[in-house]
Amino acid sequence: MSNRYEAPIRDMQFALYDVLGVDRVLPALGHEETGRELVDAVLEEAARFAGTVLAPLNEVGDREGCSLDKATGEVKTPTGFRQAYEQYVEGGWPGLTAPAEFGGQGLPHVVGFVQKEMIDSANLAWGNFPLLGHGATEALRHHGEDWQREVFLKPLVSGEWTGTMCLTEPHCGTDLGLLKTRAEPAADGSYSITGTKIFITAGEHDLASNIVHLVLARLPDAPAGSKGISLFAVPKFKVDRQGKVGERNAVTCGSLEHKMGIHGSATCVMNFDGAEGWLVGQPHKGMSHMFTMMNAARLAVGLQGLGLSERALQNALAYSRERLQSRALSGPKQPDKAADPIIVHPDVRRMLLTCKALVEGGRVMAYHAGLMVDAAEGASDPAERERALALVDFMTPIVKGCLTEWGVECTYHALQCFGGHGYIAEHGMEQLARDARITTLYEGTTGIQALDLVGRKILKLEGAGLKVLGGMIRAFCEENGGNQALGAMVGTLATTAKEWEELTVSIAKAAAKNPEEVGAASYDYLMYSGYVTLAYWWARMAAAAEASGQPEGFKAGKRETARFYFERILPRTRAHAAAIRSGSASLMGLDEADFDA
Amino acid sequence: MSNRYEAPIRDMQFALYDVLGVDRVLPALGHEETGRELVDAVLEEAARFAGTVLAPLNEVGDREGCSLDKATGEVKTPTGFRQAYEQYVEGGWPGLTAPAEFGGQGLPHVVGFVQKEMIDSANLAWGNFPLLGHGATEALRHHGEDWQREVFLKPLVSGEWTGTMCLTEPHCGTDLGLLKTRAEPAADGSYSITGTKIFITAGEHDLASNIVHLVLARLPDAPAGSKGISLFAVPKFKVDRQGKVGERNAVTCGSLEHKMGIHGSATCVMNFDGAEGWLVGQPHKGMSHMFTMMNAARLAVGLQGLGLSERALQNALAYSRERLQSRALSGPKQPDKAADPIIVHPDVRRMLLTCKALVEGGRVMAYHAGLMVDAAEGASDPAERERALALVDFMTPIVKGCLTEWGVECTYHALQCFGGHGYIAEHGMEQLARDARITTLYEGTTGIQALDLVGRKILKLEGAGLKVLGGMIRAFCEENGGNQALGAMVGTLATTAKEWEELTVSIAKAAAKNPEEVGAASYDYLMYSGYVTLAYWWARMAAAAEASGQPEGFKAGKRETARFYFERILPRTRAHAAAIRSGSASLMGLDEADFDA
Repeated sequence: MSNRYEAPIRDMQFALYDVLGVDRVLPALGHEETGRELVDAVLEEAARFAGTVLAPLNEVGDREGCSLDKATGEVKTPTGFRQAYEQYVEGGWPGLTAPAEFGGQGLPHVVGFVQKEMIDSANLAWGNFPLLGHGATEALRHHGEDWQREVFLKPLVSGEWTGTMCLTEPHCGTDLGLLKTRAEPAADGSYSITGTKIFITAGEHDLASNIVHLVLARLPDAPAGSKGISLFAVPKFKVDRQGKVGERNAVTCGSLEHKMGIHGSATCVMNFDGAEGWLVGQPHKGMSHMFTMMNAARLAVGLQGLGLSERALQNALAYSRERLQSRALSGPKQPDKAADPIIVHPDVRRMLLTCKALVEGGRVMAYHAGLMVDAAEGASDPAERERALALVDFMTPIVKGCLTEWGVECTYHALQCFGGHGYIAEHGMEQLARDARITTLYEGTTGIQALDLVGRKILKLEGAGLKVLGGMIRAFCEENGGNQALGAMVGTLATTAKEWEELTVSIAKAAAKNPEEVGAASYDYLMYSGYVTLAYWWARMAAAAEASGQPEGFKAGKRETARFYFERILPRTRAHAAAIRSGSASLMGLDEADFDA
Repeated sequence: MSNRYEAPIRDMQFALYDVLGVDRVLPALGHEETGRELVDAVLEEAARFAGTVLAPLNEVGDREGCSLDKATGEVKTPTGFRQAYEQYVEGGWPGLTAPAEFGGQGLPHVVGFVQKEMIDSANLAWGNFPLLGHGATEALRHHGEDWQREVFLKPLVSGEWTGTMCLTEPHCGTDLGLLKTRAEPAADGSYSITGTKIFITAGEHDLASNIVHLVLARLPDAPAGSKGISLFAVPKFKVDRQGKVGERNAVTCGSLEHKMGIHGSATCVMNFDGAEGWLVGQPHKGMSHMFTMMNAARLAVGLQGLGLSERALQNALAYSRERLQSRALSGPKQPDKAADPIIVHPDVRRMLLTCKALVEGGRVMAYHAGLMVDAAEGASDPAERERALALVDFMTPIVKGCLTEWGVECTYHALQCFGGHGYIAEHGMEQLARDARITTLYEGTTGIQALDLVGRKILKLEGAGLKVLGGMIRAFCEENGGNQALGAMVGTLATTAKEWEELTVSIAKAAAKNPEEVGAASYDYLMYSGYVTLAYWWARMAAAAEASGQPEGFKAGKRETARFYFERILPRTRAHAAAIRSGSASLMGLDEADFDA
């Protein structure tokens, strides 16, 4: 059996139209021309590309990996990756959501999110090559000089070139204030960049004719710490102000990392040996410019968790219907066969429904964040733009943190459905589990997302985004108090949302006295936030399904999964709430020296 | 940095002596000669062997894996595995707990458990080669004819030969009633075995001169299903009734599986082409004979989860003390350095303490099960033997199910402490995570353990073991009601144990009406049982540490970790209790056809 993937277009459309109403909302966000017909056409073509071009290369990528020719410094991608990338560029996919003035198609971000989910389901490792071109585009678009936008953006948007984010160094990942890479000004206005960066995704490869590295480095007069970091564009082949591509720059791939998964993705050590680079934006403002890229990348990694979960679920579901083993506890369901398919067993259903609840709920949560990116850019009312931006800021660590933790969980359950067969390479399930494991680490670990949520989004920004989301939940509960189709869900949602607010206040109060309380509460608060948000979306999905013209089986799927979510997943908030309430004492009481057994 | 392992002898001794009092208990269990001095000497020698011989081969085993020479059918183990096995045999380790009459050392099983934990921490894949010899020994000892015991046991006990368990076939793993391998009687009293077995651990290798396969197969007159299965001993090289080893038997390794982890362990497809085998025990009683091996193997796999967790924790702890990144939220802790070690951060402590709580609590839980195996065999009072046996039966699925789930969790947290560095092979953390992933699958998945616990141990055996453990918990709570050192723990433990009993009764009642309720409750009941059992052991550990002569730092470690466990881990029971109470409706309501998104 090969590991299958077919884009779940029906559910994607349900999320977009029935739940989020993007066809009604988008025209008011500056996308007058983006109707359902256009979106459907994009989804179908994206599904075809993901399912027929990328998905078959997923196992090849894992098996072959990337290889570095030490003599030439060139990185060879797995068989078929290059041809797939050519088709991707020919299809105009790299510029799907980029502005028309740089050759993009200017489609809404929410549509880009759907396409991104498909790519990540089909071939996460391959998807990492075009991924960071988007971030580079955004950074240069917002912070670059005119000539930089002129020179770099068109080939990045077309996919002729790709981009990277060069942040991490051997001694600093989370704490970029420690970074050592230097930038010396040259006479012609360029800079000479020297240093070593590690964990550089797509740092070197054979897919594109040039690679634009966006590099954090220190100017000679830089203050210490994170306030002395500047951003530079360092192309693999030098580019002058007129856009002329010149000789090879002094930036090379020193080695490739041997990783647990995403073998098809080139994770490079990059050596900058006096490479020519161009300052992007203001000196010493590199950290804030980099966040333009980082936030987009964090949402994208959340989609990776979602994409892997979807594929894992599809395969576990197919296997659970085919694999005959034991009889149902209540008696044979398929007496003509040697045994019943394992999907009859409650515990197998528990695993499948857990995945279904997290995937389909997570999908709406992620797409809604995408829609809010569009609203933050395109809503005509400035107050609406501000609300949307606050919501995106608030949801970014939740989408990144929760969807990747759930990605690890869903690939775990899905593999478990296969029993011992899940552990062998043949079925592809173990690859999904290995690939998923990177997503809670890169672009900021789950712990870092949690700190961003509590330390910045709740405390520093005074919970602006939480207020917006809390208001949405309250409005929904008020409107649906009498909605028979939702039963006890509305009451449970309202109670949980209220507890969420109380926990938020209690953390803020405790943190005012003891800053360690922020870190002590952060992880559990992040997960709590994810579960309450998903409860909101599941209630809305159940209501939307009931009101929709979807077939009865589909409605039953939403109704029963919503019920499962409220009865069997949402109670996880009880454990997280207890952990939050216990405060920092049980974490901080033990001396560092006494951790040893 | 290499992946380190040093046996945590101090904590092992604490578990054995301070908590379980094995030095007081063992003499009354037929081990009069086994004093603390002897046990300590064994532990130290075992620690030396595990730390210096096995641990350094762990990474080699992962990288090289086993290889099959298709021409000769021979399997080559990784570099150094054979030499290590020779030393293991020379040291007399294979027969550590085997009876003296077959050349064993007759040491208590609880000591064997400690040694097994060390092996699994050091090199899980290597440990799988000697592992199943123990099971084969037990099966032959209890069910074999005199000549079979005479011929097979001594070389199995000495480690000259190894054993396997040949159960699974391509179409049947859990549901052995479906198995097709045939056994035809031959004129000389032997049988001709024909069929294909898969996932056979150590099915073929170059460590020992012979391999005794214990094979489930059907006799010609066998009834259908699991009541028609018999057990056969099928040696790689034929063995006659006089113990003379003859020609190569018709059993060969067809291929090796490509697995997510435990690359150094040979997972074989074994083809039996009319191989000569000998019936072990009664015809058609193979399933019950096989359970003699299986239960021991399940406890052993629980120890594998524990062993991997211990090693993961050791490395995460070392890294968290060394890695400098960011400042403590409450201000610099090591202002002379560029940043603080990450162990200052509450969220890193959360991950480390979670591992510490699950590892050290799990250790006592597992060792206690080992001690009960000794009591079931050696207690002079038949009632005590019966109680001990009931407890072992009850705890086996909990030890196997929970310690392996916690193994997956602990290797997850430990890797997470390393950030992106955890994902690359260099630090060895990702190998531990991949290796751990098999443990919730083989010897019965977690779901199968859960069904065994609820369906058999609670319902069929009427909770005999639960009554024993419940009694121990009640007695402890009564004795320690006024123990100041335990604070609120005793009350929380008593409340949780009471809820556990109520949940048990509610499941039994629901199951009487609807058998699907067993499967619906089973997983959450298994985990609930694990957490309440660990609460008991953590309370006992806190009391034992306080009363011990251990250094203050060690006492603080137990006290603070017990507090952490009660405040931040035990509340997980709330989510499991809610799931149990929700019953089967939310699992069974959705038609199989409507699971698709």
